[in-house]
Amino acid sequence: MKRHDALGVLVIGTGRMGADHVRRIEEVTSGARVVAVVDVDPARAEQVAAGIDGCRTYTDPVAAMASPDVDAVLVASPGVAHEAALLAAFSHDLPVLCEKPLTPDAASALRVLEAERRLGRRRVQVGFMRRYDAEYLKLKSLLDTGRLGRPLMLHNVHRNMASPPWWTSAMHINDSVVHEIDVTRWLLGQEITAVTVLCPRPSVNAPEGLQDPQFVVMETDGGAIVDVEINVNCGFGYQVRAEVVCERGTARIGDGRGMVVNSAGQWGGTIAQDFIERFEDAYDREVQAWVDATRRGEVTGPGVWDGYAVAAVCEAGVRARTEGRRVEVELVERPALYR
Amino acid sequence: MKRHDALGVLVIGTGRMGADHVRRIEEVTSGARVVAVVDVDPARAEQVAAGIDGCRTYTDPVAAMASPDVDAVLVASPGVAHEAALLAAFSHDLPVLCEKPLTPDAASALRVLEAERRLGRRRVQVGFMRRYDAEYLKLKSLLDTGRLGRPLMLHNVHRNMASPPWWTSAMHINDSVVHEIDVTRWLLGQEITAVTVLCPRPSVNAPEGLQDPQFVVMETDGGAIVDVEINVNCGFGYQVRAEVVCERGTARIGDGRGMVVNSAGQWGGTIAQDFIERFEDAYDREVQAWVDATRRGEVTGPGVWDGYAVAAVCEAGVRARTEGRRVEVELVERPALYR
Amino acid sequence: MKRHDALGVLVIGTGRMGADHVRRIEEVTSGARVVAVVDVDPARAEQVAAGIDGCRTYTDPVAAMASPDVDAVLVASPGVAHEAALLAAFSHDLPVLCEKPLTPDAASALRVLEAERRLGRRRVQVGFMRRYDAEYLKLKSLLDTGRLGRPLMLHNVHRNMASPPWWTSAMHINDSVVHEIDVTRWLLGQEITAVTVLCPRPSVNAPEGLQDPQFVVMETDGGAIVDVEINVNCGFGYQVRAEVVCERGTARIGDGRGMVVNSAGQWGGTIAQDFIERFEDAYDREVQAWVDATRRGEVTGPGVWDGYAVAAVCEAGVRARTEGRRVEVELVERPALYR
Amino acid sequence: MKRHDALGVLVIGTGRMGADHVRRIEEVTSGARVVAVVDVDPARAEQVAAGIDGCRTYTDPVAAMASPDVDAVLVASPGVAHEAALLAAFSHDLPVLCEKPLTPDAASALRVLEAERRLGRRRVQVGFMRRYDAEYLKLKSLLDTGRLGRPLMLHNVHRNMASPPWWTSAMHINDSVVHEIDVTRWLLGQEITAVTVLCPRPSVNAPEGLQDPQFVVMETDGGAIVDVEINVNCGFGYQVRAEVVCERGTARIGDGRGMVVNSAGQWGGTIAQDFIERFEDAYDREVQAWVDATRRGEVTGPGVWDGYAVAAVCEAGVRARTEGRRVEVELVERPALYR
Repeated sequence: MKRHDALGVLVIGTGRMGADHVRRIEEVTSGARVVAVVDVDPARAEQVAAGIDGCRTYTDPVAAMASPDVDAVLVASPGVAHEAALLAAFSHDLPVLCEKPLTPDAASALRVLEAERRLGRRRVQVGFMRRYDAEYLKLKSLLDTGRLGRPLMLHNVHRNMASPPWWTSAMHINDSVVHEIDVTRWLLGQEITAVTVLCPRPSVNAPEGLQDPQFVVMETDGGAIVDVEINVNCGFGYQVRAEVVCERGTARIGDGRGMVVNSAGQWGGTIAQDFIERFEDAYDREVQAWVDATRRGEVTGPGVWDGYAVAAVCEAGVRARTEGRRVEVELVERPALYR
Repeated sequence: MKRHDALGVLVIGTGRMGADHVRRIEEVTSGARVVAVVDVDPARAEQVAAGIDGCRTYTDPVAAMASPDVDAVLVASPGVAHEAALLAAFSHDLPVLCEKPLTPDAASALRVLEAERRLGRRRVQVGFMRRYDAEYLKLKSLLDTGRLGRPLMLHNVHRNMASPPWWTSAMHINDSVVHEIDVTRWLLGQEITAVTVLCPRPSVNAPEGLQDPQFVVMETDGGAIVDVEINVNCGFGYQVRAEVVCERGTARIGDGRGMVVNSAGQWGGTIAQDFIERFEDAYDREVQAWVDATRRGEVTGPGVWDGYAVAAVCEAGVRARTEGRRVEVELVERPALYR
Repeated sequence: MKRHDALGVLVIGTGRMGADHVRRIEEVTSGARVVAVVDVDPARAEQVAAGIDGCRTYTDPVAAMASPDVDAVLVASPGVAHEAALLAAFSHDLPVLCEKPLTPDAASALRVLEAERRLGRRRVQVGFMRRYDAEYLKLKSLLDTGRLGRPLMLHNVHRNMASPPWWTSAMHINDSVVHEIDVTRWLLGQEITAVTVLCPRPSVNAPEGLQDPQFVVMETDGGAIVDVEINVNCGFGYQVRAEVVCERGTARIGDGRGMVVNSAGQWGGTIAQDFIERFEDAYDREVQAWVDATRRGEVTGPGVWDGYAVAAVCEAGVRARTEGRRVEVELVERPALYR
Repeated sequence: MKRHDALGVLVIGTGRMGADHVRRIEEVTSGARVVAVVDVDPARAEQVAAGIDGCRTYTDPVAAMASPDVDAVLVASPGVAHEAALLAAFSHDLPVLCEKPLTPDAASALRVLEAERRLGRRRVQVGFMRRYDAEYLKLKSLLDTGRLGRPLMLHNVHRNMASPPWWTSAMHINDSVVHEIDVTRWLLGQEITAVTVLCPRPSVNAPEGLQDPQFVVMETDGGAIVDVEINVNCGFGYQVRAEVVCERGTARIGDGRGMVVNSAGQWGGTIAQDFIERFEDAYDREVQAWVDATRRGEVTGPGVWDGYAVAAVCEAGVRARTEGRRVEVELVERPALYR
């Protein structure tokens, strides 16, 4: 259960991801609050902190971490700044959620690893958020049951509408396939041992000089083959798909209808077993919407008129069944309050 | 933005729904906390309150509402107790989230309506949570654009695995179709004017004497026809489906892959436009999981080893592309801390 | 096995359906040929008969049936002409495939029934072609296994792009729902005992005065409830859907991906078990296309160049696997004959 | 239009595929008949020829081709026998449908090519039947419109339930991927220039020593990358899938519901525009079933009782609408003839 002393979070970096995390902690997350934000641009930090009770702003992460109300750090600055931020957090013994990448290259990542190892306990969670996606979680659960046997192949598709102007051919791997690399390791529980990249003639939609799309083939120490279509100018939307091919069946996510499994002569998926499972998110949103509106002094959801009108239809419905006939519904005139 | 003084909620009723709402407010909802719970059974109330800092228990809702830290009330007691709870909340001028039904019949609902009207402002939200379901919201948005024209029919399917022992033939309407009644009114923006109920020969799975399934046909003041299959012993799971038939197309939800639209010679749906849209829930879950683990003093997500291993594979991948060959990945030995 | 003396068919009526059946018998059907056609319009009959070896034309069905090479009759004239044609066929003891409806009303249908009964053996097949649709056949097979238990409800959707100018509100039933009526009787093996029709406010796309769409509810002597959305100006295409709700599961066809079954916590369908099942239609089309092209003195399909090029790639592929490396494919220059 | 002198076909090879083609030509194909069959095993040839009017049997293909009633040859013997059969057919100037492979290797294929080139006109169609599959045809049509832009990648999945005992690791390419090789060339209109094969650790379901599954990556002269999962012991069924990734969208077939296209923010497919399109196959099967039954002296389809019962329900339905009430259906007692 939540303790009423919320976790005080310091957010480093208030760009797109950082600002979104600040909003998330303040408006969505239970049990945490943003106590300070850091940005090299003080104006941007001020803008993000505005309207949050007691939220301070800093330009220096190290100074910010010294504050006693900082219980944890969320690092959302550019990748090149991560190593310093992480080492500073270690020196303050603060737990960290670090947006991906951990650091921009293996050598610096290894330095962070050594530092955490010297600390003797794990303090860092890396922002590979696909491990928290409902579909990937379902896929992971299914694989972990062993019901489909050992994984042999993993086919991935990763498509973006269009690449931003500053995108490079290396970012296909470093910024996009990075997710499939983590997903492969997590889903299969195996390390990747070799990589091959094939490049078709670039799409007409790719900026001049950009190698897009790319086709990445990876091998793992468990003997699995993994392929990734990475296509950052597909032109129609954002799409992520994964299909695991196992010895006794396959499972695919990302087609927008949960997980579809092929097994034993059947394709298909599971059906929710009760309304809590089906409408859990709706209940969560309902209560959050009510709390938010109430704090603003408003009522925004279905109200008493709706409750009354529904009750009147229910009465007519029960009568229609017991009397075996069409029954008309009578409502009082709708009061002005409910118009 | 969230104020740090969380909304103090009194939860009335600690049965299945009430206890779930208590858990939700404490663990999921941002900006609210449970300050007290009420139940006619003090032991049940104690059990639910245990572990929540400063959460008091009551057997009398009226006494509970008198407490100054109660900012709002969530009513999750049985329907027959709702009227009294609502009137008490009105007398304390407290905002209410009232689980459906508002009250068990139209006459009592009308009394509540009159009371709120005398109060002169709306205080009550009724728990029709489907209005907060992502698929229903998509359907509502589409209808509201007018792109498909005026709604002509609405086909609904509502299936439950099996009915509990105390279920009656009237509860098909009062407890189940009640949702489709609200959904019809909300989606179409029309009131229901007549109801007919047809009953097939009961299913062999229905308890002796129970009329299950039922087929409900409703007419609206906008000239639409609405049908509902209500089937509480379908035997295979929980399923809710809705298809709106409009003048220029149809839209269906509930087949587990978002909304499928028929229009202009095409069937299909929309594709997410960016990763925020696709993975928003994953980000929310990720940050909540990190906050929860951090408060427990744990690190549960992907860690530094993962960040390092991924960086090493990325380096190999970029090299594989630029050098046009298969590149092997070299990792240091995995330290004990990360095993 | 086919006897080489093909069945001689007389086709009565050479409108849209009749002309299509003539084409079908000549170009698609194995073991039959059109020996004569009848139409009140001799020019239309001539046009359809042109190019068919020895195909005669008539304006009088009775005269046509007297010819000794007529082995069977296909009736595709307007419904009002069916009774006379059927009785004439009975007097010549000829087997008949009669397009739906058998006759336009129950009284005339009863006269045909009495006539066939006096004949003492069945001679007539009625053109309810949905009984030959692959999806309906799958649904029927599943129901007949009893695996899903007894049918309780049958939901149908029947949508047409737009109604022709001469369409009337009665034709919704007589020309469209007529198929669902037959399908209901065939799928469930039950007779229909009562009908109710509900009409929403007509669609803006329906011609002035036409009641479109309509919602038809039928009851059967087996205690099932059947509903049909009939919507002849839906504006987006032609769509036919059927969902049978049984005691232990449901099965739906018409969403364009075979049959989808809900049962025992799972939704899904079956996977083909071998290539013959998956590609049977392709083999049929391939051989028909080859026969047709060969009779025209042409070669239209994949040829020797394709066979050669594929063989060369296969060789490279096998080498690539055994040698564990990328292998280039070498082809001779493509000869002019194959360009 | 069909000439009544059917094409006389000689079928060489009466194993599984050959016997199936004999059945097809006799029972399904319009305008052709089997005049002779050839097999090294005379008993097998006799068995297949039995029951076909005037069908002769041979053990020597060359002798069989000399017969004047042989208009065309279908080669379904083992691949090693194809070259001789094709050359013999060339010497008789007979058109040929040759089951895949054309010949077992590129050198022999090249000899056949040279022979046909000397003949000066194309006589051979190779049995790449996927070019006649409805889904592949749809995909090809879409690509040919250019609406999705140039193809960049083609992802293929090809799965078989289980491999037969005599299967070898080379047959993955020669007998299975051979289809994807042809499909690639046909769909993209490009030749394949290089092949790489990656092998995961073999599936536990693969017989000892068999490299199964395999992952094949091909490059084309148009700059496209093509990958194929070939998996002949997948254990759950037979599945073939193809997804073309183009510059402005993707299209996928093989998920059992026609073609699904991603384009311009939407996923989905097309809806049939009329009942002929939707039910064309049903009409074909209906007429074939009627012809077959009639030739056997039977009536197997819906009959006069069905026509009558449907007419009675239609009458009730029209009355139900015009009178705005539930109308009961009255049927005469069902005569013995129709029970």
